[in-house]
Amino acid sequence: MSILIRNVQLNEKPTDIFIDGMLIRQIGQGLQVNADEIIDGYKKAVFPGFVNAHAHAAMTLFRGLAEDLPLERWLKEKIWPAEARHTDETIYWGTKLACLEMIETGTTCFNDMYFRPKMAYQAISEMGLRAMITDTIFDFFEPERAEKAKRMTEENLKLSQVFDSTIRYSVAPHAIYSVSAELFKWSADFAKANGLIMHTHLAESRQEYENSIKDFGLSPVKYLHKLGVLSPNLSLAHMLWIDDEDIQILADYDVKVVHNPQSNLKIASGYEFKYEEMKQKGITVCLGMDGCASSNNLDMTEGMKLASLLQKAWRFDPTKLPEKEALDMATVNGAKTFEINAGLVKEGYLADLILIDLNQTSFTPNHNTIANLVYAANGSTVDTLICNGKILMKNRFVNGRQTIIDNAIEAAKIIKG
Amino acid sequence: MSILIRNVQLNEKPTDIFIDGMLIRQIGQGLQVNADEIIDGYKKAVFPGFVNAHAHAAMTLFRGLAEDLPLERWLKEKIWPAEARHTDETIYWGTKLACLEMIETGTTCFNDMYFRPKMAYQAISEMGLRAMITDTIFDFFEPERAEKAKRMTEENLKLSQVFDSTIRYSVAPHAIYSVSAELFKWSADFAKANGLIMHTHLAESRQEYENSIKDFGLSPVKYLHKLGVLSPNLSLAHMLWIDDEDIQILADYDVKVVHNPQSNLKIASGYEFKYEEMKQKGITVCLGMDGCASSNNLDMTEGMKLASLLQKAWRFDPTKLPEKEALDMATVNGAKTFEINAGLVKEGYLADLILIDLNQTSFTPNHNTIANLVYAANGSTVDTLICNGKILMKNRFVNGRQTIIDNAIEAAKIIKG
Repeated sequence: MSILIRNVQLNEKPTDIFIDGMLIRQIGQGLQVNADEIIDGYKKAVFPGFVNAHAHAAMTLFRGLAEDLPLERWLKEKIWPAEARHTDETIYWGTKLACLEMIETGTTCFNDMYFRPKMAYQAISEMGLRAMITDTIFDFFEPERAEKAKRMTEENLKLSQVFDSTIRYSVAPHAIYSVSAELFKWSADFAKANGLIMHTHLAESRQEYENSIKDFGLSPVKYLHKLGVLSPNLSLAHMLWIDDEDIQILADYDVKVVHNPQSNLKIASGYEFKYEEMKQKGITVCLGMDGCASSNNLDMTEGMKLASLLQKAWRFDPTKLPEKEALDMATVNGAKTFEINAGLVKEGYLADLILIDLNQTSFTPNHNTIANLVYAANGSTVDTLICNGKILMKNRFVNGRQTIIDNAIEAAKIIKG
Repeated sequence: MSILIRNVQLNEKPTDIFIDGMLIRQIGQGLQVNADEIIDGYKKAVFPGFVNAHAHAAMTLFRGLAEDLPLERWLKEKIWPAEARHTDETIYWGTKLACLEMIETGTTCFNDMYFRPKMAYQAISEMGLRAMITDTIFDFFEPERAEKAKRMTEENLKLSQVFDSTIRYSVAPHAIYSVSAELFKWSADFAKANGLIMHTHLAESRQEYENSIKDFGLSPVKYLHKLGVLSPNLSLAHMLWIDDEDIQILADYDVKVVHNPQSNLKIASGYEFKYEEMKQKGITVCLGMDGCASSNNLDMTEGMKLASLLQKAWRFDPTKLPEKEALDMATVNGAKTFEINAGLVKEGYLADLILIDLNQTSFTPNHNTIANLVYAANGSTVDTLICNGKILMKNRFVNGRQTIIDNAIEAAKIIKG
């Protein structure tokens, strides 16, 4: 399958883009090539597809289920009981719905940290997105549960041998308050031995930070450092409660960081995300949307804007996190984190692309396309999405959309109980 | 002109709504009435149209023109030179573009604080929105300029006698650092004598607060109190740098407050907006989108989400500013501020309504329609907009849309210079 995008805006200039197989093969004006499909790029701008670096996809079924509650009641009365009601079917339709929403808002790749990877795999591969999937590991400091988690992870990795190349299995211990030191170390060893990405929640809340000091005598980052699990293939979600020493440690090990601004604000975890300090140390910072129970949508354009606005606000400096850095956070930094040759519109890169409809009020006028994408637009301006060289949405049409919405509504009834 | 909306969701239940002339006449299931136009409300929810309580409409032409600069350079190098390039034509097309964007994102009424009200009036009346318009007053403490501003305001009020009933002239001294005490007092007297709304920027930045202490020996609020200009018809935009005494004074005079979260974050004015304290004192707080030079879009759904998330975040309390209060801020509180019988879907109220398309991912599932509107949706989910009993958008079609976009692009070239 080959695609020729004609006359599309790239870096404010018109060009053609030729895609063959899963790669961007040629970029230039007036390309003389034959293609199976021609896309008219007039009044459209091309960008890399977004990489949602921290997601719990099937939690889209939780959208609006539990609002404005204190964290403990929210978890104990609403989220955990609802999660206990998950079935294969709810994971499947919840993940399909998440994929639909991500496609409609420009995300081509996501890092899913949830359960029942077989169902997640089925849903994601049908939708055509690129993803990391996992079966999140907990042991709550009980050795028996740790052993079960290990066997499950080994088993899952075997099953994942048959996955499409676009979907990778990853290792995801849940958090330092739910996973023992021993299981954390095993996870890191297992990830290293098998060349897998590792992902966890870290330093999300003040409570977590204080408990870490109390229980381990160390900050969350220093605790993981002591366990010896830090490495370039590890990405850490949230990371609000860290100090300069922590940042230096992360930089030393080339650990990746995922910022989740919506979720952090909504459940009041914190807002003083230390992007500037991390950037200065060369740390790769990417962007995640977390689950819809705490961020409510998966629109990465909203995430970019919020990330940028928050940096400017809490530092009282409007020059912080300018639009180009917000875009990098949402694209190429995510690709780097997950070792994917994407995140740039460049020859030889994976054809994970979006076309933005410039004939929208949020791009009128268009003094600065990136600024308009980051600060003015929402995901509904994404007109066309290509992932791995395949068109998943064209002129906002996604195949099977209504079936997904209808079945997700039914699945959500099971979740609600 | 009469409209019957059939089978639409209101407060999570299906109903019919009958509109005749400019009012909502009847609400109930299975209404037996004849109407000139029938709208199918299936899979749609009805909400009051949003009231954007602080806008500089024609600044939509500045979208993306000046990003990520320190405040002083932003104003002196970019915004002021660009504003000096405004012509009748740029005001007209900029305001048309703003109206188009507001219609497409669910706003039925706005408070415009800008210049050349004749052109703004023409643009807004053609578009059919409800608005307050003005010719913003400055004197920079020069008596001659004050006299000119007074004569201009008197003249404008005379011209406004021929306005449609949906558009009112208002009095808007710019700010305490650009308007003398004498002109501020004259403005308040003039507003009172003529039954007009009065609007100003106040307590926006730390700098403004510190200068107020230095120049007047009082906080911005106490300074206006000393001038004797506080009253229920006064609304104050931004209001970040205030203390408990200020809040008590505002409550005593029933002064209205407009929160502008995007703009406040983007130009780093502040984020600790004291909604909770104002609410406890019974102050009416509404929501504004400011100009597109500092907020970049006019989508009130984004404003609601950001207002709510910010309260939760800076207070470290996820129960703050729940979704219903965010919705009230964006609707009925704005209507109250501008003395308009709107902001509620209720018999006898003005037919300023929006229909939301529930067949969107952001409303799937729909455990809580208001939560989905505030936390998950963006303005593109607005399907139909009715203002003053007239349909301005139906199934996302707005008459004359392309002409506005094309002309706004040309007008923006004049602004860019």
